[in-house]
Amino acid sequence: MTTTLSRTETFLDLAGKLLGPKGLTTEADALAQWVTDWRGRYTGRALALASPASTVEVAALVKLCVEHGIPIVPQGGNSGMAGGATPDDSGTAILLSLRRMNAIRSMDASSGQCVCDAGVILQILHEEADSMALRFPLTLGGKGSATVGGLISTNAGGTQVLRHGTMRAQVLGIEAVLADGSVFDGLTVLKKDNRGFDLKQLFIGSEGTLGIVTAATLRLVPAASARSTAWVGLPTITAARNLLRFVDKAMGDALEGFEVVPDHCLDSVLKHLPDARAPLSDRHAWNALVECISSDGDSAALRDELESALGAAMEEGLLEDAVLASSESQSEHFWLLRDSISAAERALGPAMQHDISVPVDAMPEFILAAIPEIERRFPGTTGAAFGHLGDGNVHFHILAPPGAKPGEWEESEGKQISAHVYDLVTDWGGSISAEHGIGQMKVAELGRLGDPVALDIMRRVKQALDPNGLLNPGKLVPLTE
Amino acid sequence: MTTTLSRTETFLDLAGKLLGPKGLTTEADALAQWVTDWRGRYTGRALALASPASTVEVAALVKLCVEHGIPIVPQGGNSGMAGGATPDDSGTAILLSLRRMNAIRSMDASSGQCVCDAGVILQILHEEADSMALRFPLTLGGKGSATVGGLISTNAGGTQVLRHGTMRAQVLGIEAVLADGSVFDGLTVLKKDNRGFDLKQLFIGSEGTLGIVTAATLRLVPAASARSTAWVGLPTITAARNLLRFVDKAMGDALEGFEVVPDHCLDSVLKHLPDARAPLSDRHAWNALVECISSDGDSAALRDELESALGAAMEEGLLEDAVLASSESQSEHFWLLRDSISAAERALGPAMQHDISVPVDAMPEFILAAIPEIERRFPGTTGAAFGHLGDGNVHFHILAPPGAKPGEWEESEGKQISAHVYDLVTDWGGSISAEHGIGQMKVAELGRLGDPVALDIMRRVKQALDPNGLLNPGKLVPLTE
Repeated sequence: MTTTLSRTETFLDLAGKLLGPKGLTTEADALAQWVTDWRGRYTGRALALASPASTVEVAALVKLCVEHGIPIVPQGGNSGMAGGATPDDSGTAILLSLRRMNAIRSMDASSGQCVCDAGVILQILHEEADSMALRFPLTLGGKGSATVGGLISTNAGGTQVLRHGTMRAQVLGIEAVLADGSVFDGLTVLKKDNRGFDLKQLFIGSEGTLGIVTAATLRLVPAASARSTAWVGLPTITAARNLLRFVDKAMGDALEGFEVVPDHCLDSVLKHLPDARAPLSDRHAWNALVECISSDGDSAALRDELESALGAAMEEGLLEDAVLASSESQSEHFWLLRDSISAAERALGPAMQHDISVPVDAMPEFILAAIPEIERRFPGTTGAAFGHLGDGNVHFHILAPPGAKPGEWEESEGKQISAHVYDLVTDWGGSISAEHGIGQMKVAELGRLGDPVALDIMRRVKQALDPNGLLNPGKLVPLTE
Repeated sequence: MTTTLSRTETFLDLAGKLLGPKGLTTEADALAQWVTDWRGRYTGRALALASPASTVEVAALVKLCVEHGIPIVPQGGNSGMAGGATPDDSGTAILLSLRRMNAIRSMDASSGQCVCDAGVILQILHEEADSMALRFPLTLGGKGSATVGGLISTNAGGTQVLRHGTMRAQVLGIEAVLADGSVFDGLTVLKKDNRGFDLKQLFIGSEGTLGIVTAATLRLVPAASARSTAWVGLPTITAARNLLRFVDKAMGDALEGFEVVPDHCLDSVLKHLPDARAPLSDRHAWNALVECISSDGDSAALRDELESALGAAMEEGLLEDAVLASSESQSEHFWLLRDSISAAERALGPAMQHDISVPVDAMPEFILAAIPEIERRFPGTTGAAFGHLGDGNVHFHILAPPGAKPGEWEESEGKQISAHVYDLVTDWGGSISAEHGIGQMKVAELGRLGDPVALDIMRRVKQALDPNGLLNPGKLVPLTE
């Protein structure tokens, strides 16, 4: 007796044999957590959840997918912000989790390098580096779930970009499985190598659309020996930019963070967190959180240095008031105020959130022009811009008018507001995605607003490396003009 | 009466009208200097020398070339090391000089950025930056002719890579004309931008095979305020590597150069330069030239710091002797010794020169293994390795046996030696081109030794961006397997 299996059934049968029971499941319960993004904004369906244990298994699986025409959605910690790791609702794709591949293959203090599997979790990497008096100089809110592969695929940012750059700057080498199942082995680090195109760059920030990152060689820096944090009161956002320039010059490489918070955001946070206190006695139109880190000094010396820099800035009229954290716990309190803005805002009602950038020097002028313009155009709304001023990247939130209906407002006026924000940002030469990526969330907007020449190059490269369109379809690359 | 013009004649007619008499010439005298590379190793022929005055003219010219099927060989200062800017001898291509496009469009101290046309000469850029108390942190021997566009297209290295990286690290934005004549405008600098692939990376180090770089936004650093140079005597190359690690830790970001010179190379230089003196009283098997630069200290303080670092290294047995330059002219003398090795070597007879890299930590072991192996296999030859130890990149020269016939030897035994050197480097996970590029010189060797998966990606990307194969044909990308 013979049975005829469908193409999909044949694929699942072969994939199950390849990966074993730990490596493949089609059970709805096991899949449920991973077919929805962590914020619950996108939900899709998948044929199966594949969890290969090695690069060899990933390569063999991709070959099987090519033979059977099965799309592949790679996934790390499922903590992305743009739905880039969530399948569509056709149910034709497999979800390819890299989480089982979680070995730190090597870590070397003398070269300041480590080689990690794609599934290594950021926090684990931090801890391992710390145990060798080293530091991986990138961190972000989702560090307990975000994986090395996901950080690379989204070119993640975070709060240390000012000094250390985005994930791209930390990646020295890459191993990736290509759309035909071949393995690109670019893990060996050469400081100088001019044998053609720098292929690893193609896989950084391409959200799994050109290949599946399976491992990487990453840069490590010496562990921090000192940290000093200050909270500064400022009259205007332009004053904040001028202070940034001043502190950058005075503190040099020690300056690692420069975050801005408008007074009304601080106000929301203070109402939202019962135990929170304003760091300064008076209130100021803008606040800056300034953080310096050193790897070869002590905290008292660094604190003195930051204090005298801020003192000099005050004498030059660059700030209204400032306080330095006197302890680690006070530093943490400053950061808690900064990190609670989104949560405090949610308590106020619906808001449209935008992760945008413009050239660093232009950000104050952009904020001063854009917020009143939007509040005028959409009466009753309130604009809030806060975050990484030092990177020219703010979180640009527009709060709904009082009484707006959650769920409804976002789909009606909210959508118009977002389109308008992206129009404005594009007019200012900025980016509609500074650090969160495009995923499925912004792919239509990128198609609408992206430079046609750049989009054409992206489409050509995508077609060249993934001619069957099986790698993370529907993400990042607007395929039609 | 009608005359029928050939396709080529029609093209030249239209190109002449487009570019005017200053922009196009077919005169042999005007072409002669540019169809041969500066070292006289490669000579080709060209239909014409086109010298457009603007990006708009480059774009229009490329469109004309596409319409008439004319290949294009872009050229900057014609000071490349691999024949990458020299046309083949078919005479079917035009030589596209970017030298007329030589404006520094803007230079801004507060952002530390400048926007340059592709034809800006490196030395001019240095001088302009210096006049604003800034520094462009890349330099090399050909700075009087090398252009920004050429430096980008070859991802140039030089003597400051240890601290500042290769050209790739200096490029913040790019403008390029693509193979269809469209213009990719990526000059606006955003510190964070995750709108898809980082397209500028494609044009860096691709030797004009994917597009013609017409302008770039470059990174500037504060001008140097202090410089201190030391000459160090060492027993072994392994000791040199250990000293590098020690000084790197002790001097941090101030360490900008770490060059190694074996005793027999120093000996050749001292015989070659009548006025040269050995910096140290005794001779040592290996020497290191160590250079530190600071932008916020004075020279005396920097000198003291380097002196105490070297003193501590001596106490730990990491070096045999050391002397610090007591003046700028003594610093220059140390560099003259380093920079005269190739010239001194030429006086000794023919040699095969190789620009190779292996992982930084592996270089001593590579040198210790490879030189005796080659000298054994090719009796009478002498191996010399010198240069950028801090980058894992040495100039690896094999001198002919005494009495070898110049011209003949290179074509017979010399060729076998080079192939063997490239085999060894590849076995060690290294690069057959650390900083000079592939051009036409090494394209066959790259085809022979390159990772097949990497070569396949390169071919796909080349085909995607230049489907007619008109951009710098025969360079960099080994087209056939």
